[in-house]
Amino acid sequence: MEVFEYFPVWDKLTSEQQNTLSRSALRRSVKAGSLIYGGEKECLGLLLVSSGRLRAYIFSEDGREITLYRLVERDICLFSASCMINSIQFAISIEAEKDTEFWLIPPDMYKKVMEDSAPLSNYTNQVMADRFSEVMWLIEQIMWKSVDRRLAGFLLEESALEESRMLMITHEKIANHMGTAREVVTRMLKYFQNEGLVALSRGKIEILDEKRLTEYAGK
Amino acid sequence: MEVFEYFPVWDKLTSEQQNTLSRSALRRSVKAGSLIYGGEKECLGLLLVSSGRLRAYIFSEDGREITLYRLVERDICLFSASCMINSIQFAISIEAEKDTEFWLIPPDMYKKVMEDSAPLSNYTNQVMADRFSEVMWLIEQIMWKSVDRRLAGFLLEESALEESRMLMITHEKIANHMGTAREVVTRMLKYFQNEGLVALSRGKIEILDEKRLTEYAGK
Repeated sequence: MEVFEYFPVWDKLTSEQQNTLSRSALRRSVKAGSLIYGGEKECLGLLLVSSGRLRAYIFSEDGREITLYRLVERDICLFSASCMINSIQFAISIEAEKDTEFWLIPPDMYKKVMEDSAPLSNYTNQVMADRFSEVMWLIEQIMWKSVDRRLAGFLLEESALEESRMLMITHEKIANHMGTAREVVTRMLKYFQNEGLVALSRGKIEILDEKRLTEYAGK
Repeated sequence: MEVFEYFPVWDKLTSEQQNTLSRSALRRSVKAGSLIYGGEKECLGLLLVSSGRLRAYIFSEDGREITLYRLVERDICLFSASCMINSIQFAISIEAEKDTEFWLIPPDMYKKVMEDSAPLSNYTNQVMADRFSEVMWLIEQIMWKSVDRRLAGFLLEESALEESRMLMITHEKIANHMGTAREVVTRMLKYFQNEGLVALSRGKIEILDEKRLTEYAGK
């Protein structure tokens, strides 16, 4: 995908603005497992994901994690360019979950165009509102849903993302996504196995009964 | 406060845009306890708080609540005009915690100006990023902090907002702010009382030892 394909408002930019964005964009590719962005002081730029998958997450002082959202092909990551917007006062980290290719637009270049272009600024607003909606969904999950239901939902989401009923993921990783302890995940998974919903083997979880798991997740 | 005082970018609007905003703004005043906004389908407009205090919160199907943030004098509420931004896919409720006066700018009027004005759109982005930062702070509190520390922090925040060490608030209300059960709040408050941090009486909580409460909150 080319840079212009990420912006439905591209036609509303001047050719100078189009040039600023497309000429400044850098092509990057990272291996699965790489930390792309982390910490408050960094300001990498706008990420436009071409292929692969990124995970945005936060972590506590004692090393616990929770996934905020995932970014896949066609997604734009705004918070890796948080210096562009003064009011952003939180730090997220971004890692590659798969080998990932993306465009990187330097923050000063993007900011320059956004400050002059109402269409681009309004579109940026939409992107932020998208992420805001995902984070609000997460709060509702954490607040109102029990861990077993959230785990059922996570397994289904993971299965949809991977397009497979066989998930190659450790209990530790699931715990980091959900912001809970590994022991809790292991206990719940064993319960799901006893109920015939999943089959467990080392580093693998097979979804056996998607229908009942979906009911369980309360979707 | 007049409408223009809420917008640091006012001078960057055309006089036509300034007129659209200031002429369409409606003066409203509501009593403490009023529900101003609630539900997904509503789209009231942009709220500019002149005096008093509003509370933005979400609630679960079984009636539990958690406070997202408070809005006081000079604050702008964007999510009461969520129809302006298509990507907002969550519903918040807003109630008046005190008698409150505000300006209301109808969503279609604000949207019209924002779509044409890069400065106003960029400023709206800042307002959203402010709220996003508050919600991210909340997630970190929920995820990494124990309920007792959050309660200590809540009492201090409430004391600062009310400019008083004597808080007129029920345990039930505190539970609704924090998204926890009343019993949990009551138990923690009794523990705080035993430790000499607060004194409890019917419908009142007096802060006795702000210094130790602050240490407790881990600030």
